[in-house]
Amino acid sequence: MSQATFDKVCEHARETAMLRSVTELLEWDERTKMPPAAGEYRAEQITYLSSKTHQRHTDPQLGAWLNELAETDLAADPNSDAGATIRQMRREYDKLTKVPQRLVEELTRLSVLGQQAWVEARKNDDFAAFSPLLEKIVKLKREQADAVGYEECCYDALLDDYEPGETTKNVTAVLEGLRKDLVPLVAAIAESSKKPDMEILKRTYPIPAQEEFGTQAAKAIGFEFNRGRLDVTHHPFCCGMGPNDTRLTTRYDENFFPSSFFSILHEAGHGIYDQGLRTEQFGLPPGMYLSLGIHESQSRMWENMVGRSETFWQHFFSPAQATFPDALTGVSRDDFYFAINDVRPSLIRVEADEATYNLHIIIRFELEQALINDGLAIADLPDAWNQKYRDYLGIEPPNDADGVLQDVHWSAALIGYFPTYALGNLYSAQFFAQAGQDVGPLDEQFARGQFTPLLDWLREKIHSPGQRYPANDLIANVTGKPLSHQPLIGYLRAKYTPLYNLG
Amino acid sequence: MSQATFDKVCEHARETAMLRSVTELLEWDERTKMPPAAGEYRAEQITYLSSKTHQRHTDPQLGAWLNELAETDLAADPNSDAGATIRQMRREYDKLTKVPQRLVEELTRLSVLGQQAWVEARKNDDFAAFSPLLEKIVKLKREQADAVGYEECCYDALLDDYEPGETTKNVTAVLEGLRKDLVPLVAAIAESSKKPDMEILKRTYPIPAQEEFGTQAAKAIGFEFNRGRLDVTHHPFCCGMGPNDTRLTTRYDENFFPSSFFSILHEAGHGIYDQGLRTEQFGLPPGMYLSLGIHESQSRMWENMVGRSETFWQHFFSPAQATFPDALTGVSRDDFYFAINDVRPSLIRVEADEATYNLHIIIRFELEQALINDGLAIADLPDAWNQKYRDYLGIEPPNDADGVLQDVHWSAALIGYFPTYALGNLYSAQFFAQAGQDVGPLDEQFARGQFTPLLDWLREKIHSPGQRYPANDLIANVTGKPLSHQPLIGYLRAKYTPLYNLG
Repeated sequence: MSQATFDKVCEHARETAMLRSVTELLEWDERTKMPPAAGEYRAEQITYLSSKTHQRHTDPQLGAWLNELAETDLAADPNSDAGATIRQMRREYDKLTKVPQRLVEELTRLSVLGQQAWVEARKNDDFAAFSPLLEKIVKLKREQADAVGYEECCYDALLDDYEPGETTKNVTAVLEGLRKDLVPLVAAIAESSKKPDMEILKRTYPIPAQEEFGTQAAKAIGFEFNRGRLDVTHHPFCCGMGPNDTRLTTRYDENFFPSSFFSILHEAGHGIYDQGLRTEQFGLPPGMYLSLGIHESQSRMWENMVGRSETFWQHFFSPAQATFPDALTGVSRDDFYFAINDVRPSLIRVEADEATYNLHIIIRFELEQALINDGLAIADLPDAWNQKYRDYLGIEPPNDADGVLQDVHWSAALIGYFPTYALGNLYSAQFFAQAGQDVGPLDEQFARGQFTPLLDWLREKIHSPGQRYPANDLIANVTGKPLSHQPLIGYLRAKYTPLYNLG
Repeated sequence: MSQATFDKVCEHARETAMLRSVTELLEWDERTKMPPAAGEYRAEQITYLSSKTHQRHTDPQLGAWLNELAETDLAADPNSDAGATIRQMRREYDKLTKVPQRLVEELTRLSVLGQQAWVEARKNDDFAAFSPLLEKIVKLKREQADAVGYEECCYDALLDDYEPGETTKNVTAVLEGLRKDLVPLVAAIAESSKKPDMEILKRTYPIPAQEEFGTQAAKAIGFEFNRGRLDVTHHPFCCGMGPNDTRLTTRYDENFFPSSFFSILHEAGHGIYDQGLRTEQFGLPPGMYLSLGIHESQSRMWENMVGRSETFWQHFFSPAQATFPDALTGVSRDDFYFAINDVRPSLIRVEADEATYNLHIIIRFELEQALINDGLAIADLPDAWNQKYRDYLGIEPPNDADGVLQDVHWSAALIGYFPTYALGNLYSAQFFAQAGQDVGPLDEQFARGQFTPLLDWLREKIHSPGQRYPANDLIANVTGKPLSHQPLIGYLRAKYTPLYNLG
């Protein structure tokens, strides 16, 4: 009896996932292939399918089935495939049905208007022109949080949309620890007289050769091209449109090697996670990614901990020299390795290096809490922003366009999203350290071009469980410890101390 | 009151068209970009959306609204936008609801099995292995025709699926006239001692240059690339996934120039028709293509009557020589023009030239009628096929693989489809002759690279009416005469008499 209801719930979820997968193709095509004039109708197609998907997610019949299942044996173990399916679908159903339709529509509308206003405001360096919309968005996000409910603070409810089950208190504790150790490390690096020669990376790297080299590297670390592909876009991304269809995009700059190469590794890391989810659970929580932070941990690990490691280039530098003879003949591997690990405080988050990136995120996380929990006035936001850049990065934004206006997120009503980027780095370091203990030494394997031990470990420990465990449980299960900033700061110190001759 | 109902009908149709447009993208992607392992889930996505589309097409509420509208002022003029919408939607609703669901499903199933069996049978030259499935398909197609109903013969109902409103009697009269004139013309060409030098076309034509040259030609004749694109596939096709999104595909053979070039012109002809439909009527009959025959008339006109004309190459031969210097330096325009107009009886329809192609179609049309109307036994089909190839083309298929087994259509339950190919040629010649009278001399315009007069004429007369008039009315309105084989045979004689020194 309860099995029959459970089967109906699963069928419902799979059908919803099918609609969603079709929407993914519409979105991928829009960003990679679609003719320019087709945009208007494409927006209608996407809106139409998204509204069908939302109807299904909030279908009262689904709610009734989930009620029926609540006390059954199938739900007894919340970490079994069936139990996790019921728990996660219940969670999503409750969240989505708690927010009034009026609020959903108003936020969607404001997000479209907000992004348009943001583009103009950034172009004109005019924060005042953007602030009325931002004020409305913050107000509505507070209303959304109130509608959904929270235990300790309003921001909890927003964070939970992107990092389910995570709390402001816990993230604050970990990021404060990170900040206290990272600010002096970054300052020491900035003061070091040893600097890489960045010119090496700005030579001519022909684009077809970049594509071939990036594809080979993505294959080598485990991205399966019979179940995926790589295309060109303006803003790199990874998306999935079926259990065996994961697509990466990148952009090429003929005169800057890292631009495509590390974005390919980054997106391939996302893609490898997608490809590691259990295909037979596609569309059900045990076959879905766990959180944005966990997703980001996979992309960051392959991009940075693997792709910017010394031993990765012990294997790949000779092929790189053979692929880009004009740029790399006569360049030493050490100089190349140093250049791709350049660290310096800078204004723009999306161009930041592996170390300073986290400070950009911490600033946003603190400001979002101030806006949502503490009533920071929108008018005071630019000053607060600039003060934090001085305090944490030792630099001063010369204008709002390259300061508080640089990110699209707030204009799109994405508040609570930023911390997942830093959580990704924290998770990745903690997982990576554990993988080293379990199947290492990883460095020796990378030097031989062997990435399968790490990949297999990730497949088993991180990818195949999908949403069976909340992220905090997963990290405790896998590493034996709660989330901590120690693995990340330890990794960064170990890497940069020799590079920058730190004391 | 009736306006409100009409609005609901239009909204219903537009929503169905939106689902259909999304399915088009899924299909385009499957044939051009999709990773190989994604095929199974893609089939599920397409089946899912197709079943939703079918539900909407046969929605009883739609039937009730159409009943309401039947006697209203809106339906009074069947050729107005509103009248044509009601008439055509009524027609489609009636046809689809008359066929029992069991028969629809059985035909779908047999079509999948049939295509699989056909691939094997053709590979093994084993007609006997395919014949039991073909027998079932023919039987079910007869049942389908009986369910839908017809006036004179069973085949009428099948033909009507692809060429709405056309009758077997009318098509037979025109195609018999064509056959009687065409068989001796093809025989005379075969006997001519003058033959083109085909080696010219088999030299090295680099693929990037072919792509650039084909794209430029498609642009020149009027295909709009801001509302469309061109990709690579195994079997060239054209499809639309929105009012401003029409996509062409082709395949490239480095050692055979016509392969991509004329398929690009052909598909661009289809695309130009799609792009000429009124965008504000997208999804409604006045914004839909009229019939497969009319669609084919547009592709054939641009491919053959324009693209293989002497004056087209007066404009394009110099650019071709500049684009393909290794292949075309020292080649005379006359020799090139003769080579692209090579005519000779051959076994395979899809490789046939502009003249003999029609005989391949006439053979299939006659055999389909024999199967459906006259009870020709499946076992007797190969002999009947071979006899007609001897009679009409003067050649003898050496086996069934290159004879009766060469086409996928019958295995896919597409019976009644073939004649639309020949109708396309007939329509195109009759339209082309009329356009020459109305806005000509076209040849002089082509020689100057001017294709806009013809394009504008087609836009006004053929494209923008969509389905407002049945095809037979359209041709009578536009040319002042019913469909006749005279324009086509006249065009072919005028072209080949000088080329082949015919008497």
